[in-house]
Amino acid sequence: MSVTYAQGFAAAGVPAGISSIAGKKDLAVVTNQGPLDVAAGVFTSNRFCAAPVQWSRGAVADGHLKAVVVNSGGANACTGQAGYDQSARTAAAMASKLGVDAEQVAVASTGLIGELLPLDNVLQGVDHAFGQLAESEEAGSDASHAIMTTDTNPKTVTLDGSGYHMGGMVKGSGMIAPQLATMICVITTDAVISSEQAQQSLREATGTSFDRIDVDGCMSTNDTVLLLASGASGVEADAKEFTSLLSQACASLARQIVGDGEGSSHDVNVTVEGAISEEAALTCARAIAGSNLLKCAIAGNDPNWGRVVSSLGTVPESVAPYDPNEVTVDINGVRVCDGGKPGESRSLVTMEEREVTITVNLHAGSAQGTIWTDDLTVDYVHINSDYES
Amino acid sequence: MSVTYAQGFAAAGVPAGISSIAGKKDLAVVTNQGPLDVAAGVFTSNRFCAAPVQWSRGAVADGHLKAVVVNSGGANACTGQAGYDQSARTAAAMASKLGVDAEQVAVASTGLIGELLPLDNVLQGVDHAFGQLAESEEAGSDASHAIMTTDTNPKTVTLDGSGYHMGGMVKGSGMIAPQLATMICVITTDAVISSEQAQQSLREATGTSFDRIDVDGCMSTNDTVLLLASGASGVEADAKEFTSLLSQACASLARQIVGDGEGSSHDVNVTVEGAISEEAALTCARAIAGSNLLKCAIAGNDPNWGRVVSSLGTVPESVAPYDPNEVTVDINGVRVCDGGKPGESRSLVTMEEREVTITVNLHAGSAQGTIWTDDLTVDYVHINSDYES
Repeated sequence: MSVTYAQGFAAAGVPAGISSIAGKKDLAVVTNQGPLDVAAGVFTSNRFCAAPVQWSRGAVADGHLKAVVVNSGGANACTGQAGYDQSARTAAAMASKLGVDAEQVAVASTGLIGELLPLDNVLQGVDHAFGQLAESEEAGSDASHAIMTTDTNPKTVTLDGSGYHMGGMVKGSGMIAPQLATMICVITTDAVISSEQAQQSLREATGTSFDRIDVDGCMSTNDTVLLLASGASGVEADAKEFTSLLSQACASLARQIVGDGEGSSHDVNVTVEGAISEEAALTCARAIAGSNLLKCAIAGNDPNWGRVVSSLGTVPESVAPYDPNEVTVDINGVRVCDGGKPGESRSLVTMEEREVTITVNLHAGSAQGTIWTDDLTVDYVHINSDYES
Repeated sequence: MSVTYAQGFAAAGVPAGISSIAGKKDLAVVTNQGPLDVAAGVFTSNRFCAAPVQWSRGAVADGHLKAVVVNSGGANACTGQAGYDQSARTAAAMASKLGVDAEQVAVASTGLIGELLPLDNVLQGVDHAFGQLAESEEAGSDASHAIMTTDTNPKTVTLDGSGYHMGGMVKGSGMIAPQLATMICVITTDAVISSEQAQQSLREATGTSFDRIDVDGCMSTNDTVLLLASGASGVEADAKEFTSLLSQACASLARQIVGDGEGSSHDVNVTVEGAISEEAALTCARAIAGSNLLKCAIAGNDPNWGRVVSSLGTVPESVAPYDPNEVTVDINGVRVCDGGKPGESRSLVTMEEREVTITVNLHAGSAQGTIWTDDLTVDYVHINSDYES
C-alpha cells in the first residue's frame, strides 16, 4: 500500500533505464489529488547537498506540493549547475503533465555521486509513469520498489488516525548517518492539516526516528523526507495525535532501514540511561553505536563490553558527566559490567538473535536515549568495495 | 635496536604466560641506568583509562622514572581497585629488583579489557626479565616483540642528534583513534635534558604524530607514550633540535602503525589544504579519514571522490568555512573533483600501490593538515569479530 493507502494519492513505479540493473524499476512518482496540496520536507544538512535537494528545498518552502518524482540509479550530487538544471527539468516535465508549475513538484534522487543523470531516460520515465498513475495497492508497491538501491526489500508503513490515514515508503540501507539517515522517504496522509503543522510534526517525527539511526556513520548528500497531505478524508487532525502517528510511521520506517542495513547480521539497540539530559544520553549512545570495533564484535556474537565502555569513555565529561566507577552495562539483559568492573560472565549472554540490546546506566541522572545501529560484517565491506554509490 | 640504541638503557623481552598464545614473548622491561632518570609521559584521554595508565600517570608526574614494565596479553582496564593493585605490585616487584621506590617504575598493559592479569605470571615474568636485561641490539629487539598484540611486525626507530641518540618502539594496529592511537610507545635517549623539556617536547611530538593517525576511530583505554632520558651521552640537547628529532621518531612510529593497521591493504594520506586554520584542516581531514564508506571504496581500489566530499560536507561551516563549489579533490594526483563537480575521469587513477594520497583543497585560506588512516577490509572485520581486545 505505502503511499496510496491514504485517500487522494496516486503513484507509479516504472523502469526508466536509469539504473545499471537492466529492467529494474527506477523511477517513482506520487501525486496529490487534493483537495489540499499541503506538504513539508526535511533534508540532509550535508554541505554538499545534491541538486534535487536544492531544488526540492525551494519547491516545498511555501508548504505546498502537487507531486514528487523519485529516481534510483543516480544521485545527481556534485554535478553543478548542469545537475540543478536536470532536477528543474524533471520537475517541469511532471508539472506540465499535471498542468501545474514546476515549483509545485519535488524531486529526489539516489545512487552514485558525481555523475549526471541520463536525462532523456528520466524524462521518458516521467512520461511513462504518468500514464501508469493509479490509486491502487499495486501502484504504491511499484513506487516503493522503484526507489530501492542496495535495499533488499521495499520498506513501507500504513497507520490509521482518528478518521484519517497515513502511509509511507522509504529507501536506505547504506550511508546511514547520525543526523538523518541516507534515505528518501515519502509519507502521505488524507488528514486535513496546515502547512505549518505539517512542517512542525515532520521535524519532530524525524528528530526521534531517522535522526536516531546510524548504520555506518556516513551522512548522505541526498537525504530527503517529504510529507504530503491531501485532506481527502475531510477530517481535521488533532495536532498531538497527528505528530504521534507521524512519529510512529517514521520510527517504523527508520527501524526497517536498520533491519536492512548493508550486510548486517544484527540490529543493535543502544540505550543509555541515568544521564543528566536526553542530549547527554544520545551523545553517549551515538559514541557507542559508532564504534567499528564493537560492531565487529557483535558480528562475531561477542558481547565485548570493553568496546562499549572504551567508546563511552571518549565522550567529554563536560557533555555527559558520570563516574566511570558507577557505570553498568547490560547486554541482552546480562549485567556484564558492574560499576566499571567485570560483572556477570559474558558467557551467559546469548547473541544468536538478530536483535541485540545494549543498555548502559551512567547513574548520573534520570534521562535516557536510544540509538539503533547495525553490526559491521564482512558483507558490508564487500558491498561497499564493489558497489559505487 | 629500538630502546637500547641510546646509551644508558637495558631491555629484555620474555614469555611470561600472560598471552593466550603459548610461548609468545609478552613482557618487556626497559631500565634507565643513568646518570639521569628524566622521564615524560602522554596518556589516553579516555575516561575509562586502565589501571596501568592511572599508575603510570602518577609515577611520571615528578618527571623521573628508573624503569618501565610493559605486558601484552591483557589490558588490565575496567578492573577496579584490584586492577590498580596489580599495576602497583608489578611496579613494586621491578623496583625492589632495582633497589628503588615503586613510584620510580611505570607500567603499561595491552590486550583484552575487563579482565585481571594473571599476576603470578606477571611477577615471575618481571623476575625472569630482570635476569635477561642487556644493552644489546637483541635485547631491544626482544622488548619490541614482547609488546606486540595483533601487530604483524615489531615497530622501532633509531635517530641521531648532535652528539646524542634516540631509539623507540611502539605497538598498535587496532583501536587506533583520532586522539592518541591505541598503542604503547617507549622512546629512549641519552641526551641531557630537563624533565620540563622532556614533557614539553613529548607533548609537541605526539600532537603532530600519534594524534594524527586513525585506523578505526576507536580510542583505547590504555594509550601510553613514555620518554626516558639517561643523559649518558653527556651532551646537552638543543631544545628545538630535540623536539624536532622526537617528532621525527614519533612520526616514524605512527606511520608504522598505519602501515600495519589491522587487515589493511592501503595506507591513506588525507591532506586538506586551503583551510582557514590548521585546526580546520585537521577537522576536515579527520572527517574524511573516518568514513567507513570511503575506506571500503579504497579497499576496492575505487577512487570514489563522492565519499570524500560527502564526508567533508558533514563538517559545520562554523568550524571550516568554504564554498562547496570551489572544492577540488585529487586522488593519487588526478583531479577527480574540480569545483565541487566531476573533474578528470576516475579511470585515470591507479590505486594498486599501498599508499594512497587524497588531497582536498578548500580554497578558503592557506593552512593545511594531514591525517593518516587505513582502508577498511574484510580482514579487519575478521580480526575484530574473532579477536577479543
